[in-house]
Amino acid sequence: MMTGTLHIVGTGPGDPELLTLRAVRLLGSVPVVAYFAKRGRLGHAHRIAAGHIPATAEKLRFEYPYTTEIPVDDPRYEPALTGFYTDVAAMLAARLSAGQDVALLCEGDPFFYGSAMYLFDRLAARFPSAVTPGITAMSGCWSQALQPMTHGDDVLTVLPGTMDGAEMTRRLRDTDAAVIMKVGSNLPKIRTALDEAGLTARATLVERGTMSDASMVPMAEAGEAAPYFSLVLVPGRQGAR
Amino acid sequence: MMTGTLHIVGTGPGDPELLTLRAVRLLGSVPVVAYFAKRGRLGHAHRIAAGHIPATAEKLRFEYPYTTEIPVDDPRYEPALTGFYTDVAAMLAARLSAGQDVALLCEGDPFFYGSAMYLFDRLAARFPSAVTPGITAMSGCWSQALQPMTHGDDVLTVLPGTMDGAEMTRRLRDTDAAVIMKVGSNLPKIRTALDEAGLTARATLVERGTMSDASMVPMAEAGEAAPYFSLVLVPGRQGAR
Repeated sequence: MMTGTLHIVGTGPGDPELLTLRAVRLLGSVPVVAYFAKRGRLGHAHRIAAGHIPATAEKLRFEYPYTTEIPVDDPRYEPALTGFYTDVAAMLAARLSAGQDVALLCEGDPFFYGSAMYLFDRLAARFPSAVTPGITAMSGCWSQALQPMTHGDDVLTVLPGTMDGAEMTRRLRDTDAAVIMKVGSNLPKIRTALDEAGLTARATLVERGTMSDASMVPMAEAGEAAPYFSLVLVPGRQGAR
Repeated sequence: MMTGTLHIVGTGPGDPELLTLRAVRLLGSVPVVAYFAKRGRLGHAHRIAAGHIPATAEKLRFEYPYTTEIPVDDPRYEPALTGFYTDVAAMLAARLSAGQDVALLCEGDPFFYGSAMYLFDRLAARFPSAVTPGITAMSGCWSQALQPMTHGDDVLTVLPGTMDGAEMTRRLRDTDAAVIMKVGSNLPKIRTALDEAGLTARATLVERGTMSDASMVPMAEAGEAAPYFSLVLVPGRQGAR
């Protein structure tokens, strides 16, 4: 019997209209649709794609053991996540081995900080795999904020907000444009790094980007806290053309 | 009379199936569709979107005075490009002032190294503007090449291939993942920088990403020349989850 194909499908950052035609075609054609969800939530990727999943498809909802409930450096975190991905891989492998194609949803772009990579790492050697790129959260945010990000020969640096503050300052000073991901409780540290790099006036905090309740605030006016999936945008040099 | 809205619409990197639902909706609804083309070519963005442009829409094709015909530092280059964008802005402003919505196509993601930014810079203060993000060339390439790019707390650096070689080496040594854009005749310099940073074995050259004739070659096996719109991908640390 032929094995099924693992389709890793980017859903984009939030607005269902930012799904690609390929994502919609795949969602309408596979017998199994799998997705991740934070504990007690419906699942962000599923919510984005729901309008295109046929009622006849099997839906597999995988609930993360932890997301932001405990710190990443808590000794329980990594073992729980590793075991979780291994269990999910086994459940997907059962469908793929039975010849069923599976669409594994991933918000944003799957191979850009996406959880689906951990399934790809476990399954790609055994099953044919294909990845449908998605609109990244950063593209969605800078488009909605009407902030041209990179011109001509600009260097763009994408930084995690979890990084050490002094290291963040150093990297912000050494780039033309920057995106800082995973803002959340790192906001005060990010504010200090932007201040020290002289970039606060150019920076914008975007929360819930591309969604109907999105918020875009100049960093100089931002408060003390933000959702984990917020972004800070620092546009590059404006091209003088 | 109401003025029209300038819709800057990302078409993604090449595969027409990577258009978003929003891009398709806009293309089907605006009376004017504008796009850029290299001299003597049909225009890459237009080719991607053509299947969704109604026959009744006015098509405005704008031919760049130069792309790769003369070096960017040739004294004729900047004045010609600046004048070109100003002329294009005037033609779009005429439609917008007459109350017509305009979709300006832009391959990839418009605010990520896109030419459409130069029109936004000229028109956004006078006309309502909206940007539809597109799949970036880099997302299209790493998805097609099945190369997970950034995990966890990886730093990603996007570099232009036009950069000085020693500076490229320094930046490659100082990042987890890298994308080098604008490869073309810069390929020998890029190869040296990757060698000096010890990254050649991890790097992949992608030509014509997401198109049916795409080519993905390990850097160690790449030749001496590549198309201008090629990319080099250097994936980040593999997450050990």
